[in-house]
This record gives sequence, C-alpha cells and structure tokens, in this order.
Amino acid sequence: MEIIRSIRLMQSLAEDLKKSGKRLGLVPTMGYLHQGHLSLLDAIRSRCDVLIASIFVNPTQFGPGEDFTSYPRDFQRDERLLRENDCDILFYPEKEEMYPEGFSTIVIVEGLTDELCGRSRPTHFAGVATVVAKLFNITGCDIACFGQKDGQQAAVIKRMARDLNIPVEIVVAPIVREPDGLALSSRNVYLSEPERKRSLCLKKSLDLAERLVAEGERDSKVILHYIRDIIELVEGAEIDYIEIVDAETMKEAERIKGKVMVALAVRFGKTRLIDNCLLEVSEENVE
Amino acid sequence: MEIIRSIRLMQSLAEDLKKSGKRLGLVPTMGYLHQGHLSLLDAIRSRCDVLIASIFVNPTQFGPGEDFTSYPRDFQRDERLLRENDCDILFYPEKEEMYPEGFSTIVIVEGLTDELCGRSRPTHFAGVATVVAKLFNITGCDIACFGQKDGQQAAVIKRMARDLNIPVEIVVAPIVREPDGLALSSRNVYLSEPERKRSLCLKKSLDLAERLVAEGERDSKVILHYIRDIIELVEGAEIDYIEIVDAETMKEAERIKGKVMVALAVRFGKTRLIDNCLLEVSEENVE
Repeated sequence: MEIIRSIRLMQSLAEDLKKSGKRLGLVPTMGYLHQGHLSLLDAIRSRCDVLIASIFVNPTQFGPGEDFTSYPRDFQRDERLLRENDCDILFYPEKEEMYPEGFSTIVIVEGLTDELCGRSRPTHFAGVATVVAKLFNITGCDIACFGQKDGQQAAVIKRMARDLNIPVEIVVAPIVREPDGLALSSRNVYLSEPERKRSLCLKKSLDLAERLVAEGERDSKVILHYIRDIIELVEGAEIDYIEIVDAETMKEAERIKGKVMVALAVRFGKTRLIDNCLLEVSEENVE
Repeated sequence: MEIIRSIRLMQSLAEDLKKSGKRLGLVPTMGYLHQGHLSLLDAIRSRCDVLIASIFVNPTQFGPGEDFTSYPRDFQRDERLLRENDCDILFYPEKEEMYPEGFSTIVIVEGLTDELCGRSRPTHFAGVATVVAKLFNITGCDIACFGQKDGQQAAVIKRMARDLNIPVEIVVAPIVREPDGLALSSRNVYLSEPERKRSLCLKKSLDLAERLVAEGERDSKVILHYIRDIIELVEGAEIDYIEIVDAETMKEAERIKGKVMVALAVRFGKTRLIDNCLLEVSEENVE
C-alpha cells in the first residue's frame, strides 16, 4: 500500500493510472476505522482496479463546540487495517494541504441539507460536500463508496456529484452493526458503559418502525409516535430529531410511500449518535 | 466540427478522447461570439489536441431584472464562426439538461466575489462558478481559456478550480478592443449611437491610469480621482464602481504595488459595461 500525503502526487498518480486504463475506487474516511469502513472497501473492491482510501479529519464539517480536536485518531492502527484489507493507496493529506491560505470556495447543496442533521449542524454538509468534491477531483475516482449510516450525507453527496456532473458512480453500503444492534461509529468510543446500553434504544425503535410498516402502517405520525415513546423512556436519552423523510430529497414524508428513511439523532451525555433505516413500499402495497 | 447537446454524450466522448491520450481545451461562452471569444480559441489552440467551445446562456448568473431573456443570441452565426475558426467540438446544452428538476448545488467563492461586480450582482458569481465547475466536469478539459475583459470572473474561476482541485489549467487572454478602444462585448449591441461614443470614456480613463502609474503615481486614491473626473463629465454615464484592487484577491489596493487591476463598471442608458486594465509594478519601482 502506498501512502500519499501530497495532492499533486495523488493527482498525477491518478492521472497516470487512468491513462493506463485503470478504474479507480475511493473510500473517503475520517480515520479511526472500524468494520463499517472496511465494509465500504469490500463493497467496491471487485468493481475497480485500484482501491484508494482517504483519511482526513475534515475541520470544516465540524461546527463550533463540536468534537474536531477530540475526534478519535489512530493512524498506525488505520494504516495496518487498510494494509490487511488490500487497500492499494492511502491518501492522507495535511490540513494545510487541503485548505491552504486564501482558500475561499464552498459547495452548498440546498434543500436536502436543511433537514435532519442540517438543522442542528447548519454548516456541516457544506463542509462535507466541499471536501468530498475535492477528494473526487484529487483522486479522479470512477467509483466511490459511502455508508448508509450517514444516510443524509450519502444523499447530499449523490445530489452534489449529479448536479456538478462529476463523473463518479456513488455506491452506498448498508449499515454495519455490533452484535447487539448498535450501528458502528468512530464516536461510539465516547460512550460510558451505561450510555452504551441505553444507546440500544436506537436500533430497537427502528426495528419497531420496520415491523409496523410490514404490518401495514403507512402513517408516519403514528410510527414516529411509537419511536418517540421508546426513546423518551430511556434515561439520559436526549432526542435531537426523529423523522421519516423521502430517501432522496430528505423532505418530510407524511405517508410511507416509495423509498423513505426513518432517521434519528439522539444524545447520550456528550455523545450524539445517529441511526436510520430505509423502507421501501412498492406502489401496489400503498393503501 | 461536432455539435453535442447531451451531457452524457459529451462526457463519454471526452473520456474516450482522454483515454486515447488527447489533451482537451475548453472555451466556455454564452454565444453571440465576437473576436474576443475567437481570441480565446487562438490562445489555447496550440496547447491542446481537441478544441471544445461551449455555448450556454446560463440563467443562474443573471439576477432578477437583468437581461437573461433579451441577451443576444445567434446560433447559426456562432456555429459558422466556430467552424471557420477550427473548433473541433461545440457543446451546446439545453437549460433543462444543465439544470434538471431537483438541481440543488451551488459553488460559492467567498471574499473575492463580494467586491466590484459582486456588489451590484450579488448572485452572479455563484452562478458563474457553478456552471463553470459543471462545464469543467462535463468536458474533462485539461486547459480552459477565459477573457481578461471579465477580470473578476477570471480570478473567481482560478480560485474555484484551485480550491476544488479541479485538474485544469486556466489561461486568461487579454482584452480585445474595437479600433477606437471599446472592449468587445456581446452587450455592445445594446448601445445607441450616442452611447457608443460616450462609452469610449472607459478606455480613455484606463489609459490615463496607466500613464499616471508609468509616471510614478502610486496612490490609488489619486488615480481613481482622475478616472472619476473623466467619466463624470460624460453625459449619461452612470458609474457603478471604479476601483483599484489586488489582481488575485480583488481586495482594494490603496497603493499600486505588485499586480493590481483597475476595474470599472459604468451604465450607459440600460447597458452596463465593464472594463479593466492590469498594472504590474515590480518591487524596485515602488517608492
């Protein structure tokens, strides 16, 4: 595995690889890798010739008072995991390389960034869209993989790539969970033992939503009511949002129809966790 | 010359050409071509294998009440001129192709878009940066040429391409003028005969600025004062701005030092004209 820290080098290597007919795949990460990240590599490995992972804790997607400085980092472990998982290139730029003096450009995806996480993290998705546009341009990737765990992020990136005509295929891989149901996240290390137990209410409430829909419930309000009831009963669980939205536009879905996402963000102490599930109801099944 | 109207076709043709080792050059235009546009083709012709021009009157860079609908168009003449000038591909998309339903992404270059034209046209440069990012991605161009006539636009596009790491070289070609000095612009057709005569005050005042600097004047305020005096004496000339700015950041330059741009925008009747000149003073010559 080659480790590249310079944009210029990454860009010229990518150009050479593409000229020789190679198809490049990218998995952008903020490091502190877990099985969720590694599943993203798995999801596109067979669909590209060169597998690139990037590690960059992107400061512009953290708001003031958020955990940028304390965000967990372990480069040596990440490097080892990527080697063991047949990653070909690790792109690992410095902050100054990505945002040199005079940097002035922001990519904003309107509308679908106003909802869900966009409400409590108003500058978050502009930071994400901008850095991902950069990473696409730097690596020249033909295909890139993101996790469904960050469901809104995946929708924003798809929209951005389509709108700006970036010639990249976006793959979204399913959420990877602990055996007990907690969605893998680098931020799970923040949880105390009691918080870790309480956090299971997220998956349990999503399971209930799924079951209600399977049984024929189509009214989002009813489903949201049940979810809220479960989570509100959990000590120290502070709801940021629980919503059912159209899976593409992130607009509130009053009825379960087509492809929707049940999405939630809940704080346990200082740790904010997000989780979601996708539900698809074919037209015939709609009442 | 091949005329392409579909993004998908343009993108796949560009990909094929690049795979076969061709270097692609792009001249983005809004059509109604004049010698200024053709000079942009000349400026990069020898530096690419395939010369692409695009014609797209981009609605998002016009503000409310501006001249989007009345902007002059003559596709047949443009097509003929491009053929005669050895353009290889004309990319000529429909509005619906560029901005399909659900389009939501904007590219904003902060700071240097607040000044000069950005003040009276607050959404203009976001429209420009977004459409140019799209055109870069659609054509996959290795080199692209813009005119110094739109000096601030050139600075914005350079900044955007650098910040987003778009692998394209930006060339800025000098202003082309009528024999009497008026900078070529598609909007010059709007001018009545008396307005056309009055418009010469732009070039004359820029010439004076150049002369004052050549004679050693370094105080921007003094130079601006002379320019303003000339233009204010012209009947019906309504000043939007006259400024001296750093040529890269577009920030006001109090002294003539390094590379600066003397830029002005003046209305003659309903027509707003812009013009500028670049001045470079090497450190030794600075008092």
